Amino acid sequence: MSAAPWVRCVTLPAPTLRNNTADADRLIAGLAQALPAPAGAIDLDLDLLRQLPELLRRWDYRLRCTLFRERDRWTLTGVSGADESRPAAGLAVDLGTTRVVLRLIDLTGGGPLAEHAFDNPQAAVGPDVLTRIHHAESPEGLRHLNTLIIDGLNHAIGAVCRAAGLQPPDVCALSVAGNTCMTHLFMGLVPRWIIREPYIPVVNRPGALRAADLGIAAGPFARVRVFPNIGSYFGGDLIAGILFSGLHRSSATAILVDVGTNAEVVLGNRDWLIGCAGAAGPALESGVTRMGMLAGPGVVDRVAIDPATGRFDVHTIEEKPPKGICGSGVIDLAAQLFLSGRIDIRGKLVAAACGERLKVVDGLRHLVVVPAEKSATGADLTISQADLDSLVRSKAAMYTILETLAMTVGVGLGELSRFYVAGTFGCFINPRSAIAIGMLPDLPLERYVPIGNSSLEGAALALTSADAAEEIDRIRDRITYLELNVNQDFMNRFSAAKFLPHTDAGRFPSVTVR
Amino acid sequence: MSAAPWVRCVTLPAPTLRNNTADADRLIAGLAQALPAPAGAIDLDLDLLRQLPELLRRWDYRLRCTLFRERDRWTLTGVSGADESRPAAGLAVDLGTTRVVLRLIDLTGGGPLAEHAFDNPQAAVGPDVLTRIHHAESPEGLRHLNTLIIDGLNHAIGAVCRAAGLQPPDVCALSVAGNTCMTHLFMGLVPRWIIREPYIPVVNRPGALRAADLGIAAGPFARVRVFPNIGSYFGGDLIAGILFSGLHRSSATAILVDVGTNAEVVLGNRDWLIGCAGAAGPALESGVTRMGMLAGPGVVDRVAIDPATGRFDVHTIEEKPPKGICGSGVIDLAAQLFLSGRIDIRGKLVAAACGERLKVVDGLRHLVVVPAEKSATGADLTISQADLDSLVRSKAAMYTILETLAMTVGVGLGELSRFYVAGTFGCFINPRSAIAIGMLPDLPLERYVPIGNSSLEGAALALTSADAAEEIDRIRDRITYLELNVNQDFMNRFSAAKFLPHTDAGRFPSVTVR
Repeated sequence: MSAAPWVRCVTLPAPTLRNNTADADRLIAGLAQALPAPAGAIDLDLDLLRQLPELLRRWDYRLRCTLFRERDRWTLTGVSGADESRPAAGLAVDLGTTRVVLRLIDLTGGGPLAEHAFDNPQAAVGPDVLTRIHHAESPEGLRHLNTLIIDGLNHAIGAVCRAAGLQPPDVCALSVAGNTCMTHLFMGLVPRWIIREPYIPVVNRPGALRAADLGIAAGPFARVRVFPNIGSYFGGDLIAGILFSGLHRSSATAILVDVGTNAEVVLGNRDWLIGCAGAAGPALESGVTRMGMLAGPGVVDRVAIDPATGRFDVHTIEEKPPKGICGSGVIDLAAQLFLSGRIDIRGKLVAAACGERLKVVDGLRHLVVVPAEKSATGADLTISQADLDSLVRSKAAMYTILETLAMTVGVGLGELSRFYVAGTFGCFINPRSAIAIGMLPDLPLERYVPIGNSSLEGAALALTSADAAEEIDRIRDRITYLELNVNQDFMNRFSAAKFLPHTDAGRFPSVTVR
Repeated sequence: MSAAPWVRCVTLPAPTLRNNTADADRLIAGLAQALPAPAGAIDLDLDLLRQLPELLRRWDYRLRCTLFRERDRWTLTGVSGADESRPAAGLAVDLGTTRVVLRLIDLTGGGPLAEHAFDNPQAAVGPDVLTRIHHAESPEGLRHLNTLIIDGLNHAIGAVCRAAGLQPPDVCALSVAGNTCMTHLFMGLVPRWIIREPYIPVVNRPGALRAADLGIAAGPFARVRVFPNIGSYFGGDLIAGILFSGLHRSSATAILVDVGTNAEVVLGNRDWLIGCAGAAGPALESGVTRMGMLAGPGVVDRVAIDPATGRFDVHTIEEKPPKGICGSGVIDLAAQLFLSGRIDIRGKLVAAACGERLKVVDGLRHLVVVPAEKSATGADLTISQADLDSLVRSKAAMYTILETLAMTVGVGLGELSRFYVAGTFGCFINPRSAIAIGMLPDLPLERYVPIGNSSLEGAALALTSADAAEEIDRIRDRITYLELNVNQDFMNRFSAAKFLPHTDAGRFPSVTVR
């Protein structure tokens, strides 16, 4: 990654009778020399042309120019005097259904300047994509959702700029990665046909748009690159993730799994990519268990059970008194329960092994993870048999998707050179636990690579990488989207995966029940 | 000229589960097949994307698309159902300092739909370019001039559309040719540096702009091609003229002369082009004589003097009673006066030959062209010695420019295969008269080709020709601009040309004084 390739300082020859090219053409000629050949067309917005004579003469023909590249075409997105000390700024946006994360980047040096996150204000309309799409059926509804996210972003752009001592007009380029619905609502595009067979987005490759046209408070000539999608269920966030992971450049076959609101998986290497998404059964996020919640202070994120004493060692975020459990905590817990014999290979609680931690509430078995006297809520934190059943279905769905995808291309899961796990979930999950319950394949641990918010990272990379536009297009065009066909074969594999770690325990040699 | 190459009817495959490309990408793929390969990028405006799902489904995936081409890039500038009976319209504009002419063109069939002309409303600020540039020194002044021409155009677009049974939103493409100052004011660009050494325009190649950005009332996705200029004194109007004349494609060397508010000349062939403009002394337009005026009803446009009787045969436009004389009339008159011996080779009135038509007013000799009793004004229409002296200087300047330009490239004026005369002036001028006074070289008459409003014609061609953008750029880039150096040599040639037809009468073998 070469940082900030598209900020260029140019000194133009001053006009003379022998060199009386126009201002704009003089600037374009100077930039063409400063850019890698062949530079292609360089565009200036009309409003920039209107200011140009004054600016060139004020700065004595010595300028710092920020450029935006879209294939063979450049756009001048910002100009200042060559001595300008403020950085030219770019903004990467992970446009999540639940949470929106912004990172301000110094385009001059490539480094991050500030980050800011906010809850997607569209959640006021509905927490999930489907509710929002229904709300957008009317033009007013669509406008409402579009305004919510644009206003939210503008507010956040103000905040992230302030944090860096800058202002929104300093932002020359934006890069936005999100799922297909979120990017549609961001652009004010009708999402109606995304959820109706045969599931058609308005656009797959939005390319570069003017920030001003979108209503985004940024520099007057700023451009916005919206990541392309493959279809309704395979969004730009995942393409950004692939870009960041480097999966598409790897000679060895690897896999990228993003478990957010939806489960999305891409398998491949520099020669081919195959992906699938959605229809993955209950998400492995907070929603699985009754006491589940998103990561935050006081939320259980790690669990260990001492083999000797049977003591539960429960870790919470910021070590606050426990109030709930997040995805990674649940997987740890399930793995520990399984390895210690407290649940059996079907995920059922074993009364003899659980002892007094087993309680029956409303006829349903519960295991007390944190007793009432130690919890933040004053009530027992428990996991029920239903929670465990649900987790087993989820882990089975995940494994079956991985297996199906790998089988489709004739790759054994054991052959994967890298297993990238994206998302907040991916950052905290303990692969050993995920393997123990048979959610992820039994690979050497070092092949598991958590890559965090890969959507944001990919969006940031697109701002600073020289060939981002082409690379993103290449990724998009190379992915084969596998429509998961939930047929008898799939269901057979799914049933086999509903055991811990698997009906075929030979697939998980590292997993030994104590 | 292949008409209307860029209106395409496409029938897109309806979406299915196996073909679930997005709406925009489906349309782009369909268009790419309908366009000559390689089609390059095809852009859709954001506002079109916002309407697209509804439009595609309303028209059942059968569309008529209007495209605008800018090098390897296409923009979709209009869509309608495939069965739309209204033509897709383009608008060619000759943006004159004095007069603005619009021609509405059927992009589907290539033919003209209607024409409309109006006086450039900027004339209220000043009749000439210089006054307007001074007025534009302040931002308010510039805005004022910009608003005047944009409002004037919008009004005229309404009128020309009404005349064709259309509406402004039907206009998908515009093509604007004008001198450098007029196009700057049209785009709202600072003209300040055009008139100050070293004479720098804001832009030489404005390329394609969004009509909406310019405030032009046309289709929401319409694009405007503004003809490029070579510099402050060589505008897009002349480049449009070259495009129309075909000078740049001719194997034999030819010349194009445009005498409007300024005198502009281009000499060349398909291998090279050389041009010069301005500094041509008094224009050969209405301004030369006291009784001069622009062509219109009652204006003398042709004069003959019967060699036998000496009777003046004066023709007026629409044969109304005479009230003034236009440029072509003045040249006819001067030629006839010279050929009949009423003025001598220095252009001086010969008392003996003029007889009672000679009058002295305020100590200055006048020749009565139309006596008071026959004129529309009730006063004698006369031409004064001062008028004649001015005409002689103008014709000498014109000839000297032609001679200098030809000499510079070592071409004899006699070698010119075609002599294109552009402008209203060019349409009415009698080449025989212009030769008689030595304004134009003594070529066989059939080589003189009046080409009318070549700026408008070139602008129209740019709307309907397949490769207009490249062709225009090629013309622009190929012209060598000759800065007329008014040195001793030039002055010597000018002095020699101040005789009728010339000091060296051998250059004008066809001219015989009766």
